[in-house]
Amino acid sequence: MIKTIAFDGDDTLWHHENYFENAEERFHVLMNELGHYPEAKETVKKQHIESLPLWGYGVKSFTLTMIETALKLTDGAISGNDIGRVLDIGRSLYEHPVILLDHVATTIQALHGKYSLVLITKGDLFAQQTKIAQSHLAPFFDTIEVVSEKDPDTYHKIMVRDRMNPKEFVMVGNSIKSDILPVLSLGAQAVHIPYHITWQFERTELDNTRSKNFITLPSMEKLPQILDQFNQSNKQSLADFYPADFSD
Amino acid sequence: MIKTIAFDGDDTLWHHENYFENAEERFHVLMNELGHYPEAKETVKKQHIESLPLWGYGVKSFTLTMIETALKLTDGAISGNDIGRVLDIGRSLYEHPVILLDHVATTIQALHGKYSLVLITKGDLFAQQTKIAQSHLAPFFDTIEVVSEKDPDTYHKIMVRDRMNPKEFVMVGNSIKSDILPVLSLGAQAVHIPYHITWQFERTELDNTRSKNFITLPSMEKLPQILDQFNQSNKQSLADFYPADFSD
Repeated sequence: MIKTIAFDGDDTLWHHENYFENAEERFHVLMNELGHYPEAKETVKKQHIESLPLWGYGVKSFTLTMIETALKLTDGAISGNDIGRVLDIGRSLYEHPVILLDHVATTIQALHGKYSLVLITKGDLFAQQTKIAQSHLAPFFDTIEVVSEKDPDTYHKIMVRDRMNPKEFVMVGNSIKSDILPVLSLGAQAVHIPYHITWQFERTELDNTRSKNFITLPSMEKLPQILDQFNQSNKQSLADFYPADFSD
Repeated sequence: MIKTIAFDGDDTLWHHENYFENAEERFHVLMNELGHYPEAKETVKKQHIESLPLWGYGVKSFTLTMIETALKLTDGAISGNDIGRVLDIGRSLYEHPVILLDHVATTIQALHGKYSLVLITKGDLFAQQTKIAQSHLAPFFDTIEVVSEKDPDTYHKIMVRDRMNPKEFVMVGNSIKSDILPVLSLGAQAVHIPYHITWQFERTELDNTRSKNFITLPSMEKLPQILDQFNQSNKQSLADFYPADFSD
């Protein structure tokens, strides 16, 4: 019986990775206006992941990484004015509107009141809170947590603190690495809704010997119906229940 | 009767503002090596506060602000290599060790187990969590919250969620604006322990017509003794109790 539904934010509730891809592309174009840097995009992607232990996740971290990469690629020869253009790319990541994914608004509203809803989102605290406010979804959530890492320990602490039983908990998200595997390891269930772009850092090879005890949906559209029917069934897990009893 | 003691982090548990002052000074020296910018330090301080709505608090925000200020002061004429030196100043803010203020370690250990201890610290999530880990104080706290703003609403939500009675709650911190006034407005009490430097943004003129229902201590040294004696007294507030019944 599912009582608590937790949602990831970026690329699950609202578009995110597409803006980063776009920024990487603009960085690539800018660098190749300044010289011949065919590897600019790949270098900034790689540098972003390498800098995570120092700068962490988010727009500011990525902006600093773009500046570092521009200095590295040009061996410090880039002009101050062009650094200003790199900064502009970073600032624009804050300026885009928060666009919800299809079916998110109706699904969250349909689930509200029937289940305890939790938002567990990773990244820069200030930026995430700004996005949460702009999404207009905050009133539908019972708990909102911005975390710096999505590992089993993070989920475990939230479940213990809010007295959530893992058997009654399902996590919905786009990242196998951050949203699905950590909660499965705690005995909870998960619904994977892939986003059309996956950040390299979040890509995970699924180990075939490991139990794939989660379901995958193309969008949130049928989530309320599936969870309601699952709760009325005698099935032990969503993976047993779906798609056997529910075809789309 | 005090049951919960909440502590601020930066400049209350560990040194912080001195590193920013030092970084501002290094930025000033660097800029004046590159040209005549007698206003460099004041400009970066001002720009940091102006950029808070865009970049938020913390080291990354401050680093981006230093780069923006360097571009503005030189009208974009600064070289990439010198931007790299500005970045180095920002990185060094992550590299300094976490140094606890005097009496903090012994006080927190003395209070642990007798009171519920809460850490409520503002800033960049990732950076704050790194500092908390490096402080070795985490095991003594029952709850740790990193928040993006310290207003009455933030404190209210934590008290409601963790079922803390404001009458049994005292906040200990260095900032009148962020640590003291918000909790007083909720009916809780506060202990002000000034740090030798106060960030301009945190400076607040105390309104004399407003009740100053908090006490000020030079350090944490006598906090356990004062709270124990207050709890055994019949006094309604710390301000009534101290320094009348407790002189140092």
